[in-house]
Amino acid sequence: MNKDRFEIRNLGPANLSSPLPLSNRDGDKLFNFISDADRVVFNTAIKDFSRCVQSGDAPLSVEKAGPREKIFFDPRKTTAAIVTCGGLCPGINNVIRSLVMGLYYFYGVKKIIGIPYGYQGLSPDNPHPYHDLTPDKVRDIHQFGGTMLGSSRGAQEVGDMVDTLISLRVDMLFTIGGDGTLKGADAIGQEIANRGLNISVVGIPKTIDNDIDLIDKSFGFETAYDVASPIIRDAHNEAKGAYNGIAIVKLMGRDSGFIAASAAMSMPEVNFLLVPELPFKLNGRDGFLKLLQRRLKAKQHAVIVVAEGAGQHLFEEESTVKDASGNIKHQDIGIFLKDRIGDYFDRQGTEVNIKYIDHSYIIRSAPANASDSIFCNRLAYQAVHGAMAGKTRFVVGLLNNQLVYLPISEVVLRRKKIDLEGEFWYAALQSTGQPFTMG
Amino acid sequence: MNKDRFEIRNLGPANLSSPLPLSNRDGDKLFNFISDADRVVFNTAIKDFSRCVQSGDAPLSVEKAGPREKIFFDPRKTTAAIVTCGGLCPGINNVIRSLVMGLYYFYGVKKIIGIPYGYQGLSPDNPHPYHDLTPDKVRDIHQFGGTMLGSSRGAQEVGDMVDTLISLRVDMLFTIGGDGTLKGADAIGQEIANRGLNISVVGIPKTIDNDIDLIDKSFGFETAYDVASPIIRDAHNEAKGAYNGIAIVKLMGRDSGFIAASAAMSMPEVNFLLVPELPFKLNGRDGFLKLLQRRLKAKQHAVIVVAEGAGQHLFEEESTVKDASGNIKHQDIGIFLKDRIGDYFDRQGTEVNIKYIDHSYIIRSAPANASDSIFCNRLAYQAVHGAMAGKTRFVVGLLNNQLVYLPISEVVLRRKKIDLEGEFWYAALQSTGQPFTMG
Amino acid sequence: MNKDRFEIRNLGPANLSSPLPLSNRDGDKLFNFISDADRVVFNTAIKDFSRCVQSGDAPLSVEKAGPREKIFFDPRKTTAAIVTCGGLCPGINNVIRSLVMGLYYFYGVKKIIGIPYGYQGLSPDNPHPYHDLTPDKVRDIHQFGGTMLGSSRGAQEVGDMVDTLISLRVDMLFTIGGDGTLKGADAIGQEIANRGLNISVVGIPKTIDNDIDLIDKSFGFETAYDVASPIIRDAHNEAKGAYNGIAIVKLMGRDSGFIAASAAMSMPEVNFLLVPELPFKLNGRDGFLKLLQRRLKAKQHAVIVVAEGAGQHLFEEESTVKDASGNIKHQDIGIFLKDRIGDYFDRQGTEVNIKYIDHSYIIRSAPANASDSIFCNRLAYQAVHGAMAGKTRFVVGLLNNQLVYLPISEVVLRRKKIDLEGEFWYAALQSTGQPFTMG
Amino acid sequence: MNKDRFEIRNLGPANLSSPLPLSNRDGDKLFNFISDADRVVFNTAIKDFSRCVQSGDAPLSVEKAGPREKIFFDPRKTTAAIVTCGGLCPGINNVIRSLVMGLYYFYGVKKIIGIPYGYQGLSPDNPHPYHDLTPDKVRDIHQFGGTMLGSSRGAQEVGDMVDTLISLRVDMLFTIGGDGTLKGADAIGQEIANRGLNISVVGIPKTIDNDIDLIDKSFGFETAYDVASPIIRDAHNEAKGAYNGIAIVKLMGRDSGFIAASAAMSMPEVNFLLVPELPFKLNGRDGFLKLLQRRLKAKQHAVIVVAEGAGQHLFEEESTVKDASGNIKHQDIGIFLKDRIGDYFDRQGTEVNIKYIDHSYIIRSAPANASDSIFCNRLAYQAVHGAMAGKTRFVVGLLNNQLVYLPISEVVLRRKKIDLEGEFWYAALQSTGQPFTMG
Repeated sequence: MNKDRFEIRNLGPANLSSPLPLSNRDGDKLFNFISDADRVVFNTAIKDFSRCVQSGDAPLSVEKAGPREKIFFDPRKTTAAIVTCGGLCPGINNVIRSLVMGLYYFYGVKKIIGIPYGYQGLSPDNPHPYHDLTPDKVRDIHQFGGTMLGSSRGAQEVGDMVDTLISLRVDMLFTIGGDGTLKGADAIGQEIANRGLNISVVGIPKTIDNDIDLIDKSFGFETAYDVASPIIRDAHNEAKGAYNGIAIVKLMGRDSGFIAASAAMSMPEVNFLLVPELPFKLNGRDGFLKLLQRRLKAKQHAVIVVAEGAGQHLFEEESTVKDASGNIKHQDIGIFLKDRIGDYFDRQGTEVNIKYIDHSYIIRSAPANASDSIFCNRLAYQAVHGAMAGKTRFVVGLLNNQLVYLPISEVVLRRKKIDLEGEFWYAALQSTGQPFTMG
Repeated sequence: MNKDRFEIRNLGPANLSSPLPLSNRDGDKLFNFISDADRVVFNTAIKDFSRCVQSGDAPLSVEKAGPREKIFFDPRKTTAAIVTCGGLCPGINNVIRSLVMGLYYFYGVKKIIGIPYGYQGLSPDNPHPYHDLTPDKVRDIHQFGGTMLGSSRGAQEVGDMVDTLISLRVDMLFTIGGDGTLKGADAIGQEIANRGLNISVVGIPKTIDNDIDLIDKSFGFETAYDVASPIIRDAHNEAKGAYNGIAIVKLMGRDSGFIAASAAMSMPEVNFLLVPELPFKLNGRDGFLKLLQRRLKAKQHAVIVVAEGAGQHLFEEESTVKDASGNIKHQDIGIFLKDRIGDYFDRQGTEVNIKYIDHSYIIRSAPANASDSIFCNRLAYQAVHGAMAGKTRFVVGLLNNQLVYLPISEVVLRRKKIDLEGEFWYAALQSTGQPFTMG
Repeated sequence: MNKDRFEIRNLGPANLSSPLPLSNRDGDKLFNFISDADRVVFNTAIKDFSRCVQSGDAPLSVEKAGPREKIFFDPRKTTAAIVTCGGLCPGINNVIRSLVMGLYYFYGVKKIIGIPYGYQGLSPDNPHPYHDLTPDKVRDIHQFGGTMLGSSRGAQEVGDMVDTLISLRVDMLFTIGGDGTLKGADAIGQEIANRGLNISVVGIPKTIDNDIDLIDKSFGFETAYDVASPIIRDAHNEAKGAYNGIAIVKLMGRDSGFIAASAAMSMPEVNFLLVPELPFKLNGRDGFLKLLQRRLKAKQHAVIVVAEGAGQHLFEEESTVKDASGNIKHQDIGIFLKDRIGDYFDRQGTEVNIKYIDHSYIIRSAPANASDSIFCNRLAYQAVHGAMAGKTRFVVGLLNNQLVYLPISEVVLRRKKIDLEGEFWYAALQSTGQPFTMG
Repeated sequence: MNKDRFEIRNLGPANLSSPLPLSNRDGDKLFNFISDADRVVFNTAIKDFSRCVQSGDAPLSVEKAGPREKIFFDPRKTTAAIVTCGGLCPGINNVIRSLVMGLYYFYGVKKIIGIPYGYQGLSPDNPHPYHDLTPDKVRDIHQFGGTMLGSSRGAQEVGDMVDTLISLRVDMLFTIGGDGTLKGADAIGQEIANRGLNISVVGIPKTIDNDIDLIDKSFGFETAYDVASPIIRDAHNEAKGAYNGIAIVKLMGRDSGFIAASAAMSMPEVNFLLVPELPFKLNGRDGFLKLLQRRLKAKQHAVIVVAEGAGQHLFEEESTVKDASGNIKHQDIGIFLKDRIGDYFDRQGTEVNIKYIDHSYIIRSAPANASDSIFCNRLAYQAVHGAMAGKTRFVVGLLNNQLVYLPISEVVLRRKKIDLEGEFWYAALQSTGQPFTMG
């Protein structure tokens, strides 16, 4: 039962021999083909094992990524397409490059189409030229942030997009995008199945917030907090540079605070860390403002890191932030905090010097750091192997340090969030010195 | 007459022998003491020389900085003080460090007071402890941005500040700050003279905008555009990452566009450069908006760099930006441009994707780059030499690549601005491809 | 049986209540104390699980790191000591800082001794003063590479070191070092046990080469290849800058090629990757030199990355490299390759331009990047928790993404090496385009 | 007389109107054409001015760079060529890019040939294809170090190179190279004159050592010490990381120590700075070794920066370094110092830990920093203006902060060296704390 949940769909039986010079024997110093039966256990707690033994269940596991001995598509006749959607994220170009290199050199797929400007480029009235992707065109792109294909937000009509894939004779579509993009990819895959077509749809999850469920991390995330880290160092300089200096650094993280928490932990100068997962109160004797006041009294400066999606509960309490129809208007938590802190100390007659720092663009558009560059390569290679084997509607991801294939439908069920009872959050709290609760 | 203008004031005759092991002979491989008669010509155009010969005038010249053979203060009995004012700027800590090292090791001044939080720390009711600056305390600070002393904006009563200097028994005050700070320093020096005291007041000009008049450059400026440069690279990624992507990068420069122009020239991906010195029109057939439209039509993306003080003339035309009293409200040119561009293309029914990027904090609070580190050291050393010689109410600066002393009163007369008919601006225009005029 | 192998030793029963404000309940948004029974499965392949179910064995597992509800040492009476040994590695100062912060603020241990210059500082005739480590002294050290305590190589007499620990009244010793250091720590722990003392000995594995067995990665390793990555980019510039330009980049890796392979994968400009694990031939029709020749013919430039321990088998074939006693002398593979490549193309009359690049020092002594900074903090916190609980002779490490305690004796049994049949090496080969075998 | 020395040669009268939309009036906010009579005074000391007034001589001056109102070449019929010679240096690609952009967009020169691999590419038997340089081909190259054209060292027969220029119908040759390259360019220009041809030869001085005479600085130099600066920071970490740790950092500078001195001043952790200009003794009571010993005694660590050309006089004293014919063999001063220091402390029975750090490649091949990027653009623009005006056998350079044209023959007469009696060297000494003399 568990196994079914993570079963990867195949377009059909893979009957062609892989052109890769691999083996099936251990000890010959050649990499082995991976079989669909090679699976990775999901839960590594020994208690879970014991539970399984008692219940007789197999433990939850997922299919290991890798080249299959038999492939579904004949490389010489295969057309691949690559599309990049949503906001920028470090590493997109690395993924594009390695998809092209992998398709071209490993398997001999010579026809690779770059779709311009996201799903818009799959619309029938797309006015932009398609890219003809070759090794020469992508050779240097990994040194640049952004996406060479351009991107766009938002959905297109699924049937239209499938029509375009057909008219372009696409056999496999690689979609690089986040939650919404992946849902779109799954819908495309469903429509393809409905029409009885043999087009593989593959997702490479791109979420700078690291909020795709089930997987260890998504590409670009490590670069994101790597670039954010010196911003915090600078913010600390700003805070210390003025009497009662308060630097508020807003970082990405609409639903999950991974970037904020990681950046904060990498620069332990941070005194307060506010993430979407954390309920906290502004007021009250152990509320955020009182804690901030104590900090200033002790040290005359403070650094606050806040994820953009943090504290949304605070807006509900505020009558002023409803719009004409009475709906709660989404507000900028950074500006909100800045105002509340200013008001609070004004009322106290205490001089404070607040600096509000929102430098998200240089994070989004940075080139991938070394760790992400490697990760992007490995993800792309495995995406190619899975597609060539005829698998579809899957993402490639890292689970317990191993590259695996997961059904798109499973990873979009919910967002990954920081576990407030986990070691990661506890370490972040310890790093800041902040209490478990505020208020 | 010209000479008088740049004459440096002395507290009195310098009668003590300098402890520095220098010489007065060429060819002995020892640095020579600098004489007050060593002056640097201001204007290097040969035409100016000819004009002087004809008129019989001496050319305008300024006093060369450097150690004097005779000094005014007895190092063993001297107390120095250092104060840092205004906004952060890369290199402040380097200047502090080298002042301390120069005073301590070159001359043997052991008593050096760090004034906390700018001129506020010279107020009689300053509650903060003074820093006792020693080589050990400043040894590593050059690796950090910000200022170890803290800073503040705004003035204090001059008489109060002189009272504090007296009560601290300060013999020489080093002020690190911009236009306002230097004016304050000059006023302090005047008050000291009025009271017949022997306290030297020295300015080390700190203006990240590089807008101090008469001098080649101020410290921190090169670091500023060095840090800004990759922001533009990233902005270019953002612009290219979306269809008709427009990235607006706001950089510092309230009255002068040196940072914006330098950063733009260092990353020739910039298509439009707007600085305070440049009058330009939004509308009209060769106005900014039309030029932008043509650029998008040709290339589907554009990068705009705008200094914060650019386009203030545009606000005067707007009836909406007056406040209740009818005064013109200062507006954010970046936001203004973003809105106007958005409106313009909305009216045309053209999809554009605008990213507004304002990342000034990481520029202000960055540590000095190598070039500025050297420059800060050299400025600080010369400031020390001048103060020990009993000079007062002067700044140390670079003129035609040589370190000189200039009266504070001369450098605060006006702001340095980009010469719209000079080679620097012409090169910037050539780099962007932008026409001389817009509108 | 399996379980025994990874059993962690305890000094004795932990009877004191932990001062940490944690819980034992899920759902209360407080981190839970970790129990010794919380263990992490070693092997995540589903096949291993099936094998265990069939054989009735429990799967191999290791103790999860974390704060225990009962602790062994009374914080108020505890003296901790920290020693750093061996070569520099990014992150040492971060570990020191977080050990001090964790001991001081989490548990209230106020007496923390910094041992100067490695195990030499534990010698009875150590002439250097001990460091008195407090939060103030370590607050900024994470921004600097190196080690604030100094380091040394080589062993000291174990009995002597235990004598010193006793005379300093040390209750827990944190050793930060590699293979040899950890073996020394285990010997110290054994001697302590022999003498019936209650001193905990903890290892935080420091190996820039990432060659400590059983654990996912060691701190500093990610920074190492992050710093190495642009060196390869530069080497590529050098190679392309001359006709038939060949850039040879030597990187660390005496026994294991993880840095070389990771750096190469992060910059796919690399054409040849040589690691200690890889047997390869210089000559022969598919030997390295012939492959290089083909590459030059096709592209006129080549980048070679070689780990310092690669190709040691080649020296055995060379009669010239034996020393006076007939022993094979260890040689520098980088120089060796440079000479052989030069000779080869000389004989062919082909012009080549070889650049040999060995920039290891800037890698070793760099400050930790963001990812390593976080990792160092988390490792240090867990080391503190384990020591406070009275555990001894263990290292803290990452296994399947979870922090665990492993007996020192297990991790020093052998070096971790690249699995030539694993996905990591296959990806590296794919990235370079190099065949599985050469020769 | 003085004027003659710096007279720039012209191919002939410039009769064509410049296509540039510039003016000849001040105050119209348009850049003005520059006239040959616009000259910049060489010596800015007021004493020199007085001397000139007394003697009746005009002061030494040089021609100001800039666009001329009349040009010599018809852009539509002009073919330009670009060649890059010698070792890598940051900024070469920026210069190439801006030459192409300037020729193409400012003047409308559409035919621009990139010569492959330096002067070798001008040899009649050059086997490599010529580059057809267009804006599209050079658009992104400024982000990469190295040279897109490739380079080579050494000379070719001058007559052959002129033959090649003729056969390629080249009208203007831009040579980017150092001392030897410029001498070659001048010889080419002479041969062109001998043959009565109208080909302009322009030099853009490229010397990472900054040793071209008469000019303020050469491109790439600032980047060089900017990249070198953190190497010194790391070296300091290495030195402090071991007892009596001594880090020796070798930097470029065969004849001049500008990089070493600048890098040292930018990181005042440096204790000893050795440059080619400085005579020093190893032995003797105030020799280098004794000073080093005192430093270690006081602080237990030391950082030494040595330029590669420093201390060549020491080799003459050593009998061991003569080769078979009795000639003095050039030696590596870094290795030499390392050995001598090791021997010295061995003899004293003092433990020292020496790290020898030579990381020159990452300096040479780094991309230009922001300051150099701007500088390269401005140099290239002025080179284009001069060539279009029909000037020949000149270099473009910076003098007293202004861009000027200088005859190649003048700048290659001698190497620029650090003035041991100048402010720069004195500041460097003050920064290190090192005495004027050693020995």
